[in-house]
Amino acid sequence: MLRISLFFIATLAMTPMFAKSKAKAPAVAEVERWGCYEVALVADVPSGQNPFDVQLTATFCSSADTMTVAGFYDGGEAWKVRFMPSAEGDWTYSTSSEIVALDGQCGTFRCIAPSANNHGPVMVDSTGLHFCYADGTRYWPIGTTSYDWMHASSDPSVSVADAGLTMQQQTLKSLAESGFTKIRSLLLPQNFNPKYPEPDEYPFERKADGTWDWTRLNPRYFDHVEACTRALADIGIEQDLILFHPYDGGRWGFSAMPIEAGRLLCRYVGARMSSQRNVWWSLANEYDLVKEQPAEAWDAWTDAIIAADPYRHLVSIHSYTAQYYSYWDERYTHCSIQDQAPVEDFGRAAIVRNIYRKPVVFDEVLYEGDLDVRWGNLSGQEELFRMYQALIAGTYCTHSECYLLGDVDGQGFRYNFLAVGGKWQGTMWARTKFLKQLLDDLPQPMYLVDSSWDPHTSAAGPGYYMVYLGKEVADQWRFDLPTRNGRNPAYPKIAEGERFQVEIIDTWNMTITPCPTIFEAVAQDNYRTIDRQNRAVRLPQQPYLMLRIKKI
Amino acid sequence: MLRISLFFIATLAMTPMFAKSKAKAPAVAEVERWGCYEVALVADVPSGQNPFDVQLTATFCSSADTMTVAGFYDGGEAWKVRFMPSAEGDWTYSTSSEIVALDGQCGTFRCIAPSANNHGPVMVDSTGLHFCYADGTRYWPIGTTSYDWMHASSDPSVSVADAGLTMQQQTLKSLAESGFTKIRSLLLPQNFNPKYPEPDEYPFERKADGTWDWTRLNPRYFDHVEACTRALADIGIEQDLILFHPYDGGRWGFSAMPIEAGRLLCRYVGARMSSQRNVWWSLANEYDLVKEQPAEAWDAWTDAIIAADPYRHLVSIHSYTAQYYSYWDERYTHCSIQDQAPVEDFGRAAIVRNIYRKPVVFDEVLYEGDLDVRWGNLSGQEELFRMYQALIAGTYCTHSECYLLGDVDGQGFRYNFLAVGGKWQGTMWARTKFLKQLLDDLPQPMYLVDSSWDPHTSAAGPGYYMVYLGKEVADQWRFDLPTRNGRNPAYPKIAEGERFQVEIIDTWNMTITPCPTIFEAVAQDNYRTIDRQNRAVRLPQQPYLMLRIKKI
Repeated sequence: MLRISLFFIATLAMTPMFAKSKAKAPAVAEVERWGCYEVALVADVPSGQNPFDVQLTATFCSSADTMTVAGFYDGGEAWKVRFMPSAEGDWTYSTSSEIVALDGQCGTFRCIAPSANNHGPVMVDSTGLHFCYADGTRYWPIGTTSYDWMHASSDPSVSVADAGLTMQQQTLKSLAESGFTKIRSLLLPQNFNPKYPEPDEYPFERKADGTWDWTRLNPRYFDHVEACTRALADIGIEQDLILFHPYDGGRWGFSAMPIEAGRLLCRYVGARMSSQRNVWWSLANEYDLVKEQPAEAWDAWTDAIIAADPYRHLVSIHSYTAQYYSYWDERYTHCSIQDQAPVEDFGRAAIVRNIYRKPVVFDEVLYEGDLDVRWGNLSGQEELFRMYQALIAGTYCTHSECYLLGDVDGQGFRYNFLAVGGKWQGTMWARTKFLKQLLDDLPQPMYLVDSSWDPHTSAAGPGYYMVYLGKEVADQWRFDLPTRNGRNPAYPKIAEGERFQVEIIDTWNMTITPCPTIFEAVAQDNYRTIDRQNRAVRLPQQPYLMLRIKKI
Repeated sequence: MLRISLFFIATLAMTPMFAKSKAKAPAVAEVERWGCYEVALVADVPSGQNPFDVQLTATFCSSADTMTVAGFYDGGEAWKVRFMPSAEGDWTYSTSSEIVALDGQCGTFRCIAPSANNHGPVMVDSTGLHFCYADGTRYWPIGTTSYDWMHASSDPSVSVADAGLTMQQQTLKSLAESGFTKIRSLLLPQNFNPKYPEPDEYPFERKADGTWDWTRLNPRYFDHVEACTRALADIGIEQDLILFHPYDGGRWGFSAMPIEAGRLLCRYVGARMSSQRNVWWSLANEYDLVKEQPAEAWDAWTDAIIAADPYRHLVSIHSYTAQYYSYWDERYTHCSIQDQAPVEDFGRAAIVRNIYRKPVVFDEVLYEGDLDVRWGNLSGQEELFRMYQALIAGTYCTHSECYLLGDVDGQGFRYNFLAVGGKWQGTMWARTKFLKQLLDDLPQPMYLVDSSWDPHTSAAGPGYYMVYLGKEVADQWRFDLPTRNGRNPAYPKIAEGERFQVEIIDTWNMTITPCPTIFEAVAQDNYRTIDRQNRAVRLPQQPYLMLRIKKI
């Protein structure tokens, strides 16, 4: 319980309300917009009944909206209904259940303005290719990955944490020091190494014979996942929660759960966690390596998590390398791809975006690290290059690092951030705040203004260009932009005589250097615009440069 | 009529049958499998009735199959029903029509074995990623493009043809000299230059006021297209027939036809031409540039051509650059893409294939030529490079050339093969027979055996590898193959001690040179296999080399 309470300190206005037979609210309970209002109820579990099968819902009404959400059993005599209001003002609710003590419970509360860093859940924006928060604020997915961080052992001998911090607190501290805005985390524990200690809690109850009771969940397991998720919200990070995965290796057998158990798990997680605004649902990591599950499991579980989430948080699924999923399926809000090929060089990532016409996140492109497997030994420079490579093409890319740490038993058992979190060991993470600021400064998301002809140059609003030079090391960049504007009528073509300033961004060293020259546009031919005097920007002969070019 | 009769000489067994009120067949008419059996009927058009609206079908029965196909009005008193039998043996047929003279006409014929070069229509093969003929023979799409060649003028002042040949005959002669196996041709005439002469025939009838009667077609226009298509079949070339296009420029207004006229056109073309085994349907070229048509036109016309084709020939649609269509729609059998980006360098084309999981044909990747527009000035080497780049990734690529020819009016009116066919002017075409032989020699189609890790190396069967070096100019290639076999269980991993021979293929100079060394496999690490003595193949320091590596 220590871990949970530590997280709880950092969590947002939850307004727990306890009532034996009637919810007794304070005169006017308040919850912020996109916060979580919780109705807590108390009732005995009827003899012979599985409390995870009990029907419990509440209908929430305001002048703006009416929404019915499912409640859930929280262990002992506790039952809860959680709700994320999307409109300010007064709300009433009323519960409905087959259990008399849970039925017809009513109450009121007031939804107040969101706090400063609460922009609501992330959704697909009006372009269909990028993301924004519910309040319209742009959201940039700068993701990292730590599969098992929520289930990391509190044993200090298998951790990398500052004194007094658990491994999980250290992971949160690391994230807070970075510019990351998303983390991919496994809901179920990962058997990434059989020698790693057992998790404190398990998602299912055990039967007397030690096997899992696939019809009964362990609420305390989910308390902890929720606390971790709230802690992420507090530092502005989206929880890309991976519901299923193939990394069980027979240790617990969760990857072999019956389809119906997966449905129950989705329904329960949806009821508990949909009210957390920073949740995304990732059906699986490497779903196609979950050999125990037939293809219909993914259909069933996708349907189940969507049915269990009245807010329609972002949903995707993730495959093994280059095994692209049918992301055109309208149930998936965006592409969560594993493939390094599209971000290894120019001219590739845009192809994926052009095909799917949805937001594209390359959620695994190999990792910075020193593993002796080929997916885990990129340099920090290469990892950063891949992120910018994705961005210049109007797509996104997710990081992780896996530098081997520890030697717990003297026989080579080692771990890393990708597996369990902890302190950063790599170099790429430290460039993400700078990157985030660059993105926050963009008027609009980037897109290649002359796709398939110029993979270096994106527009990010009228008269605002980003030119990524990648690994090129040159002493100058001759002023040379595509004249056309793609198909965006809001972005006019460059006209003769327009003047531009250029800044040289060193993405690795995190410097921004203005170029003193003011360039003046003149058409070179039907396609390109150059400077009237054919002048160039002097470059520092470093790789990983980006040019920010603004019309004056 | 000259053109039609010239083509007709070259056409295959059509068995025309004429009858006033009863089809009088010879004792046993014969048609080869996948040939065209034609029932010709004669009847007056009932007064006041549009013959293009008349219902006429015939049901064909054999012990193997029963199929009902639509007939069509062929002008004057002529009506026809055409049928492509897919099984040898005796067939009977019986017609059905609202017109008494066309109703209940019966007959028999015998379907005999196909002739040597008749392998039936092309279809998607059992892998779902490549093509084969109906008889199981592998089909390699080595395509070229000549949009208006079927409608090219017979005026010798606007042609490039050997003495005594029309431009269309010259085009067929050019194709026969090449290794091309597919041509993209427009069904409707192209206004590629307003000064180019009018076509001899038009697809629709004109009304008294000179406008088109969208309810009445001109059978003679289609006779000619069919004759051209049969002439292609005779030289082993598939007709990728483009039903609609945006290149009308208001000259005739065909691109602005009502949706219903397009439906009629599809129905009519389907009835007339589905029995031609070498037909593919391409709904459009650059459909998204046909500004007169709403999105629903493409849905309607796709449905119409599929409904009009009982044999389910290949169907696709083609967009403007990088505007990828929803090829996941099950109505489309393959992807017909316009985008040069995927074949400009390694590591790209496979992404497209991995996403769509259908046969991928990059049907426009810019053209060899000397135009002053950027889509028409590739070198022959570059065009060939793109074709091999597609092939190594298990996809396909289509050629054309557009060297400017002629100066008809002394004011710059010029034309080229891409527009109207004629004689080859370029250099790439001459490499296609060599390419076709390489492909015909493959045991299986190519696929990248370690996709996203090694974009140079494809397997083409167990122990059979192709390594494309592209533009690399080197004096040696160290023997180094992926150990793994992708996910194909039929292709085992390379085992230690296996021995390989290597041939150096110069794709541009069309030479095949055996390397004298026999290489012996040994694992380098988990992923790659090298030679036990780390030996290399000596290379001629030329670009565009491919290595063919076979296990001994």
